[in-house]
Amino acid sequence: MSMKVAIVGAGGRMGRALVRAVDEASGAELSGAYEREGSAHIGQDAGTLAGLQSLGIEITGDIGRALEDTDVIIDFTAPSASVAFARLAADRGIAHIIGTTGCTTEDDAAIAQAARKTRIVKSGNMSLGVNLLASLVEQAARALGPDAFDIEVLEMHHKHKVDAPSGTALLLGEAAAHGRGIDLRDNAVMSREGHTGARQEGTIGFATLRGGSVVGDHSVILAGAGERITISHHAEDRAIFARGAVKAALWVHQHEAHGLYSMRDVLGLQ
Amino acid sequence: MSMKVAIVGAGGRMGRALVRAVDEASGAELSGAYEREGSAHIGQDAGTLAGLQSLGIEITGDIGRALEDTDVIIDFTAPSASVAFARLAADRGIAHIIGTTGCTTEDDAAIAQAARKTRIVKSGNMSLGVNLLASLVEQAARALGPDAFDIEVLEMHHKHKVDAPSGTALLLGEAAAHGRGIDLRDNAVMSREGHTGARQEGTIGFATLRGGSVVGDHSVILAGAGERITISHHAEDRAIFARGAVKAALWVHQHEAHGLYSMRDVLGLQ
Amino acid sequence: MSMKVAIVGAGGRMGRALVRAVDEASGAELSGAYEREGSAHIGQDAGTLAGLQSLGIEITGDIGRALEDTDVIIDFTAPSASVAFARLAADRGIAHIIGTTGCTTEDDAAIAQAARKTRIVKSGNMSLGVNLLASLVEQAARALGPDAFDIEVLEMHHKHKVDAPSGTALLLGEAAAHGRGIDLRDNAVMSREGHTGARQEGTIGFATLRGGSVVGDHSVILAGAGERITISHHAEDRAIFARGAVKAALWVHQHEAHGLYSMRDVLGLQ
Amino acid sequence: MSMKVAIVGAGGRMGRALVRAVDEASGAELSGAYEREGSAHIGQDAGTLAGLQSLGIEITGDIGRALEDTDVIIDFTAPSASVAFARLAADRGIAHIIGTTGCTTEDDAAIAQAARKTRIVKSGNMSLGVNLLASLVEQAARALGPDAFDIEVLEMHHKHKVDAPSGTALLLGEAAAHGRGIDLRDNAVMSREGHTGARQEGTIGFATLRGGSVVGDHSVILAGAGERITISHHAEDRAIFARGAVKAALWVHQHEAHGLYSMRDVLGLQ
Repeated sequence: MSMKVAIVGAGGRMGRALVRAVDEASGAELSGAYEREGSAHIGQDAGTLAGLQSLGIEITGDIGRALEDTDVIIDFTAPSASVAFARLAADRGIAHIIGTTGCTTEDDAAIAQAARKTRIVKSGNMSLGVNLLASLVEQAARALGPDAFDIEVLEMHHKHKVDAPSGTALLLGEAAAHGRGIDLRDNAVMSREGHTGARQEGTIGFATLRGGSVVGDHSVILAGAGERITISHHAEDRAIFARGAVKAALWVHQHEAHGLYSMRDVLGLQ
Repeated sequence: MSMKVAIVGAGGRMGRALVRAVDEASGAELSGAYEREGSAHIGQDAGTLAGLQSLGIEITGDIGRALEDTDVIIDFTAPSASVAFARLAADRGIAHIIGTTGCTTEDDAAIAQAARKTRIVKSGNMSLGVNLLASLVEQAARALGPDAFDIEVLEMHHKHKVDAPSGTALLLGEAAAHGRGIDLRDNAVMSREGHTGARQEGTIGFATLRGGSVVGDHSVILAGAGERITISHHAEDRAIFARGAVKAALWVHQHEAHGLYSMRDVLGLQ
Repeated sequence: MSMKVAIVGAGGRMGRALVRAVDEASGAELSGAYEREGSAHIGQDAGTLAGLQSLGIEITGDIGRALEDTDVIIDFTAPSASVAFARLAADRGIAHIIGTTGCTTEDDAAIAQAARKTRIVKSGNMSLGVNLLASLVEQAARALGPDAFDIEVLEMHHKHKVDAPSGTALLLGEAAAHGRGIDLRDNAVMSREGHTGARQEGTIGFATLRGGSVVGDHSVILAGAGERITISHHAEDRAIFARGAVKAALWVHQHEAHGLYSMRDVLGLQ
Repeated sequence: MSMKVAIVGAGGRMGRALVRAVDEASGAELSGAYEREGSAHIGQDAGTLAGLQSLGIEITGDIGRALEDTDVIIDFTAPSASVAFARLAADRGIAHIIGTTGCTTEDDAAIAQAARKTRIVKSGNMSLGVNLLASLVEQAARALGPDAFDIEVLEMHHKHKVDAPSGTALLLGEAAAHGRGIDLRDNAVMSREGHTGARQEGTIGFATLRGGSVVGDHSVILAGAGERITISHHAEDRAIFARGAVKAALWVHQHEAHGLYSMRDVLGLQ
């Protein structure tokens, strides 16, 4: 029997991407679609709003109705909303996938508390590829020490991005630093210009490219004497975050043990 | 105190590269250099022959003399010679690093037998990077299943190479197949030309480039819907095999437990 | 004043991409939209069909009405239709952009004939990037001779593609062969597997990767002793062909001389 | 008959690389080898000093003897020496290849003056690949305007390099700026860190990677909406500069017209 998914924030850009991802996944079907009261999308069919055929699921402002007959909630909304949904999920024994970013320590504590009574997967980046990359980078950084291999992180994004390096580049730098047992903040070289002097052993360098419509390219390079390893991720479109969330839902649907999980658990990585 | 290394086959191209790698490594020093009887290099200084200053170690045809006061033998010779050196190493309690290729099942059994009485590291490719890559590829192939991610192996070598794909490309393909729990021979697509039809799920594709003086580039690509992971190795020069062997020697010198180890053990990978 | 564009085949996938490309281009506006009689799209608004707001241009089956008040026709239809549109364009003094593929020698002759009375741009690949690449590859192949540099063409496409190598890879191979003054057919090595022997001087090699949802990546590598040049094109989405056609329309709108032009003319390349 | 080459500064690292490059080139042979008076290498055989067999050419401190029976001088020495050699070359009707860097405006004027009486090729980077790249980048930057394509320059070098970006990266940036008809200094973004804001149209961005033993990798990226072009150079070893100089010598040996030439002339690029 198909896993039944309710999407909260179903009228937004990410919500609509989630509707499409559920629709294309085998073993999953949409069972509810919620938007907060006052949304212009209430009453619309979640499928047609997402550019699909009608799915017979109307977007509702009544969360109780949205969660009727649901196995998993998928949620890329906002911190306070996600905390509330986590509590509802715990009360009703529904699993909860949280892709929301910007949670405070208190929000995270409340979510962990809810996870004692249900199964929650939470990640700041739901892409399967980026999460796998972080795990591989950590291992590579551990296996190839700073005396012999220098670590560099390169990223490219579209011309509209306003900060550098990207959050994902920093996440990969953190993974490398963790593998090396060092603190990224003390060892990062965020950019290079002019007379920099020779590279300092043990640092982690970053370089940033901007241009065109690039969705997001990331590479971690380990450069030693006479050889180089490069571990790269190339994102073609933003649907990968929605697909990763649905994959997390399918995984958690097979797991009975309460708790707070990460995408590394979903991917079966240590 | 420095680890003392004897190099067998010290007059050949690989032997000389090993002499240089020992000389440049901190914590290692050359203690002996052997060539088989009749070699024109017997009596020459192993350092000057390798393009270094004199190291005061003469190449000898007397294996007993070459192994006097030695902690580790490094050996990229030939199967039958390596089996004999493994027995000598076992008798004298000297560690043994074997980069020799082409061993038969019987040779491997004899080496495993010797490893019950000493510490042996054996690998068909001593490059740190390639061994790390194989481990990362295996994990990536396991985490990202064939329903969602297609695996491709790309390699480029110099124009003189006569076969395709390279042994290292096949080794990486084997690692991917192992991660997927399949047999490479049943699932490999070694080349594509003409009307191939759509890609078959679960296959592992290979593509081969040849040109110039390329020492060896390898990439494993995992391509899914909307994202791609690429894990690459770039070799700048052949000295990486000698450096990897010296790294294995330094590692085994710190290990007391008898046994047969691989480069994955040296790299601390599971 | 804006250039006025009529799109023929406006109801198809490419036609809708063209409507969006005209809408997003500055200096261009949609003035007509044609579909052949019997199309279910006749009577629909061309904008809403393309996923935009209404543009007030109804798709019509009456070509005369579609071409009223038009400066340029953009046409990715079929050979016989394109020949007919070229004649109409010549009669009315309207410029014509043709992205149609599969034309016979006779079709091409008829189009060239029409171009004596108007301005036509025709190309089998309207992407700016691929056309630029072909020009750069031709020059590189001419400057770096076969005695010193080996040429390889690598391409990757999605898992559904049924032939290898891609038409664009062959186009780039042709450009390289042209630069070298040789015939591609006599010098191409379309794939490599098993005991191939050493690379033959002067050949042009191809390698093909397939997987995931890759829209189209192409690289031409010139590999010499100690150095390598790589010229690559990465397509993120198919809208680039529509954008290239609109760019061709804007270019031809500024040119008065009758004749048949290519994308190289549009790009200002020799 | 073979072209006869005299190498000045034959005892230095670059001089020895030039001796090897002449020796491996078909159609060229070493006819003289000069070092300034007092050099410890005077009297040594130029071939054995370069790691080859003896070539029967002794390094001499007598320039007259070094230039006896010579067609072309190759010179990677120092500005004042190169000016003097250019005058000697002009007096004797010998061609002159100059790879010396750091010449002042006065030095350049003196060299141009000498070139009125002989044939001189001068370039700050003698690599064929880098010179070709600069020409391709200039054309690409001209064909794809700043409204639609963003230009980025990426480079990676070994960990010992003390400045960023590299001279070659700046040379490629200059080529792009020239193609766009702008001044690089007014439009370069040399690095990015923190809150940078969106990318400004028309700028040329740089990013720098450092690590391992990388000889020198350079890429110029032109990123537009939905597509990207990348033009890259990968150097495997420093011998490419010597090989480029020998190629320039062979080219100039076939040219009778006096004048000052660049590597673009050698490559047949406009």
